[in-house]
Amino acid sequence: CFLFRSFKLILELASSSAAEQWNIVYLMLAVALMLGMARVLGEFARFLKQPSVVGEIVAGILLGQTIFGNMAPEFFNSIFPQEGNLNVGLEAIIKVSAAMLLLVAGLEVDLATVFKQGKGALTVALVGMAIPFALGAGASSAWPEFMGVSDAYASNTLPFILFMGIAVSITALPVIARILSDLNFFKSDMGMLIMSAAMINDILGWIIFAIILTMMGGDSSSADGLHGMGWQGTIAMTFGFIILMITLGRYFFHKALPFVQAHTSWPGGVLGFVIVVTLLCAALTEWIGIHAIFGAFIAGVAMGDSTHLRHRTHETIDEFITNVFAPLFFVSIGLHVNFVDGFDYQLVLAVLAIAMIGKIGGSYWGARLMKMKKRESAAVGFGMSAQGAMGIILGQVALTEGLITDQLYVAIIVMALGSSIMAGPMMQKMLKREIKRTLPDFLSDKHLILNLEAKDVKGVIRELAMRASEIVGMDGEEIYKNVWRREQLMRTGIGNGLAVPHARLNGLTKSFVIVGRSERGVDFDSPDGQRARLICMLLTPGDSQTAQLELLDMVARTFINEDTRRRAFEASTGVEFIAALKIGHIA
Amino acid sequence: CFLFRSFKLILELASSSAAEQWNIVYLMLAVALMLGMARVLGEFARFLKQPSVVGEIVAGILLGQTIFGNMAPEFFNSIFPQEGNLNVGLEAIIKVSAAMLLLVAGLEVDLATVFKQGKGALTVALVGMAIPFALGAGASSAWPEFMGVSDAYASNTLPFILFMGIAVSITALPVIARILSDLNFFKSDMGMLIMSAAMINDILGWIIFAIILTMMGGDSSSADGLHGMGWQGTIAMTFGFIILMITLGRYFFHKALPFVQAHTSWPGGVLGFVIVVTLLCAALTEWIGIHAIFGAFIAGVAMGDSTHLRHRTHETIDEFITNVFAPLFFVSIGLHVNFVDGFDYQLVLAVLAIAMIGKIGGSYWGARLMKMKKRESAAVGFGMSAQGAMGIILGQVALTEGLITDQLYVAIIVMALGSSIMAGPMMQKMLKREIKRTLPDFLSDKHLILNLEAKDVKGVIRELAMRASEIVGMDGEEIYKNVWRREQLMRTGIGNGLAVPHARLNGLTKSFVIVGRSERGVDFDSPDGQRARLICMLLTPGDSQTAQLELLDMVARTFINEDTRRRAFEASTGVEFIAALKIGHIA
Repeated sequence: CFLFRSFKLILELASSSAAEQWNIVYLMLAVALMLGMARVLGEFARFLKQPSVVGEIVAGILLGQTIFGNMAPEFFNSIFPQEGNLNVGLEAIIKVSAAMLLLVAGLEVDLATVFKQGKGALTVALVGMAIPFALGAGASSAWPEFMGVSDAYASNTLPFILFMGIAVSITALPVIARILSDLNFFKSDMGMLIMSAAMINDILGWIIFAIILTMMGGDSSSADGLHGMGWQGTIAMTFGFIILMITLGRYFFHKALPFVQAHTSWPGGVLGFVIVVTLLCAALTEWIGIHAIFGAFIAGVAMGDSTHLRHRTHETIDEFITNVFAPLFFVSIGLHVNFVDGFDYQLVLAVLAIAMIGKIGGSYWGARLMKMKKRESAAVGFGMSAQGAMGIILGQVALTEGLITDQLYVAIIVMALGSSIMAGPMMQKMLKREIKRTLPDFLSDKHLILNLEAKDVKGVIRELAMRASEIVGMDGEEIYKNVWRREQLMRTGIGNGLAVPHARLNGLTKSFVIVGRSERGVDFDSPDGQRARLICMLLTPGDSQTAQLELLDMVARTFINEDTRRRAFEASTGVEFIAALKIGHIA
Repeated sequence: CFLFRSFKLILELASSSAAEQWNIVYLMLAVALMLGMARVLGEFARFLKQPSVVGEIVAGILLGQTIFGNMAPEFFNSIFPQEGNLNVGLEAIIKVSAAMLLLVAGLEVDLATVFKQGKGALTVALVGMAIPFALGAGASSAWPEFMGVSDAYASNTLPFILFMGIAVSITALPVIARILSDLNFFKSDMGMLIMSAAMINDILGWIIFAIILTMMGGDSSSADGLHGMGWQGTIAMTFGFIILMITLGRYFFHKALPFVQAHTSWPGGVLGFVIVVTLLCAALTEWIGIHAIFGAFIAGVAMGDSTHLRHRTHETIDEFITNVFAPLFFVSIGLHVNFVDGFDYQLVLAVLAIAMIGKIGGSYWGARLMKMKKRESAAVGFGMSAQGAMGIILGQVALTEGLITDQLYVAIIVMALGSSIMAGPMMQKMLKREIKRTLPDFLSDKHLILNLEAKDVKGVIRELAMRASEIVGMDGEEIYKNVWRREQLMRTGIGNGLAVPHARLNGLTKSFVIVGRSERGVDFDSPDGQRARLICMLLTPGDSQTAQLELLDMVARTFINEDTRRRAFEASTGVEFIAALKIGHIA
């Protein structure tokens, strides 16, 4: 019948997009899975005092062929296929994510510091590259088969040798940047030295790679065809781009950013401007032949120096990119490799040893040549050794082209992960610096008494002391007496409804905090006359002089935010209370 | 020679990715061009008092085949190819952008208001759909060839008729949301009624479309293959999803958000959580068969209601998505259509007339049935008529399948643009509401005197009055006398280094502001005793009672932000000064 035929035609019309529809379903699922896993394992890594990037890369391994792909290969291949439209679509998202990630890293760089670090950075970079290159190339030359040359190249090992030299000597700016900022090291001289050295290292690495490519341009139209200027052209353009961006470009952005801000809607104008400039620079450097993310990084460097890039815009860019784009990029690394099948422990150990000894040793030596102290030099060495994704990217090309075995690729990834895992803790240890903690790090449900029963200062302190004794297993009376003794000297109300009774306790091994909340408030003799409704009892080890001041500072900073105080007063559960405290540390 | 051969192998290894490299170059360029054009024309549209979405769609037309593709077809086809990896990659980015856009729209919806508007929204949606559907289907039935049925379907017009009915009766939530928030209407009852009606309208539209698809599932394995449950299944799952999300889902998010905030790093945890949930919902609804962006929207609705989704997170999501993802989506609409070749003015007029009369008339009637006033009903009608991208998306499918001609597709896009352009201004006119302006809207270099010469109140007022007279062409002495008379009654220092001398002037047609800055400050007798360093002279028409208060409120709000004041004091150029004022309006 006519109606039936028409319906059928409409149906065909629309259902022809059914395959496309599946692609969209899988695309959304894939991005959700990647981001979700990355966030969960990233948080778990932070919980273990590791940089979140480690968790994010491990998320990729779990989500990839190794675990998930092995358990549910069909479903895995539907969501993360190796080819086809879905794969291309995901790749596009990941490529843009990588550029955005490097933008943020670039925005963080303070060029004045980089120039100040110039000679030191150069020395660290050069020595730090030469040693691992020599080791990597040497080992591959001596034992090519053990090191994982593929059968196809077994009789012609020079490309393999050069590849290994570069693969173990390159650094990973994005990973180093992430580790440094995870550890609050980024803006320090040390952080800047490492970033500057890594920058020089990567520029050199990419240029050498580009030279190898372009030198032979006459023989291969595709490589030369990019801009038809040979390797001299590539080098000239690379340096031309860098110099232009950090001189004229920097001046231009310094003038342009307030102009954009004044004449466009806020903050969309500035945000759009920054991202467009970044993508254009990324396209340019990719065209030159030195990788898109390098251009994004330089764009960030040139724009980040402008004091006109407002704090708020910077924050919006930073938060969205660090928490959404970066995890997507990192999780993508391990997706298509099977780590169980490809794991050859001898090779893994060999590659790890070459890269770590070469990179840490080389950079350490470079830093020592610059007359840095031993511990600091070691910190620089470990920092520079975080290899992250760059070696993996080289490895991916090599694997695709059949130059290396699966085993070597897995070894490279393990090496990248291992160096990234070690870098943070080792740097911390070498520099004896603690990761700065925030009040929520000290609290859980049992550290909170949301409804204090006591109505006076003495009672409140006793109530909190008793709770404290349950947790640390010390005598409650003892805690109470110590805190009360201090309280009698001078009341600890600090205004805004807060009080901070405190004491040093002998026998306590680490600081802790108990928070009580009183509906009616208790008179802690605050300077502003308000009754204290939140009472934070700070207990610190008897042998630490600074712990108490640090805790006090931390508590005061947390509650300086009015919104935080209001939410903390109103919270109906411990979870809501702790959630409220999270905001205070940013605003 | 051996070395040469090795280099050549390395070269081949690396240059094999040359095509891929071009793809990356073009991908970055394409996104940069799209975002850049969208931002520029979006700002231009705002300058013309149009919603920025109009500028963004026009940017797509300029950047697309119509203009850019016509002028430089080769370059255009390299950057925006119709097929191949680059096209797929861009599509993936655009799909995710669309989902993010709808998340933001959903976050803005206040469900309580939607339920309050329930009956009204339902009436508006139903009547507003029935009329244009009848008109569209009727016209296509009477004059199929004129309306643009393709040759292939000339003898079997029913699918075409049904398509036209749906194409002119569907609305576009994202565009409507954007227009409403551009006009500051979003949170009003009217805005919520329109959003609620549009939501119902779109749900119904999509469900009808889904029914047509699934009803015939038995005959087509691909459509049925999605979940193999036929149209009953689709409908049941759609309603199941909506009901689950806005009951259990809402409750769950209300509990989960503070938990995530308390136990993860801030604000990354919440940000990641929101985006992952959104993408999962998008995947689910795409799977059900009712389009991914619908799921993203419902996810936003369910999560946005939670008071625990902190202002800061919301802002970060909102700013990044509204200014980066949304423009990308809108610009993509016009990219692959040639508007010059495809423009048939008779058909354009016919489609415009059917859609506008049907949609505006239908929604107006619906609103009148609900006993709304005439002007308000007209505002609802124009609001609902903003057709945006949804009809275009349907049109794209129809065009690809050869159901409609290029001419009709162009007509549908023109209709969508025309309705979007009209909606804002007409709503404004009907409701007699002004777009709220900010201080920077009143200022340019000539309205600023960054270094006042005068040292006393009288001199400052005279200096500002003289500058004002240059701009408005009124007698300077007259302006001076009026302002000075007011100033003598009571000094206008308002504290924080600000003073606001002001006067109503007969003969002035619109408000304006002159700002002077004094290095030393002038004593305007501020309540806080500070000398005024920024003097904003407010001149308003003599016949307006409210203009003066509005300006005063605006100035006070702008400078309430300490950062803004400091930057304004320090600005070395007019541009920097105006840039500084932009921040005050958000924080």
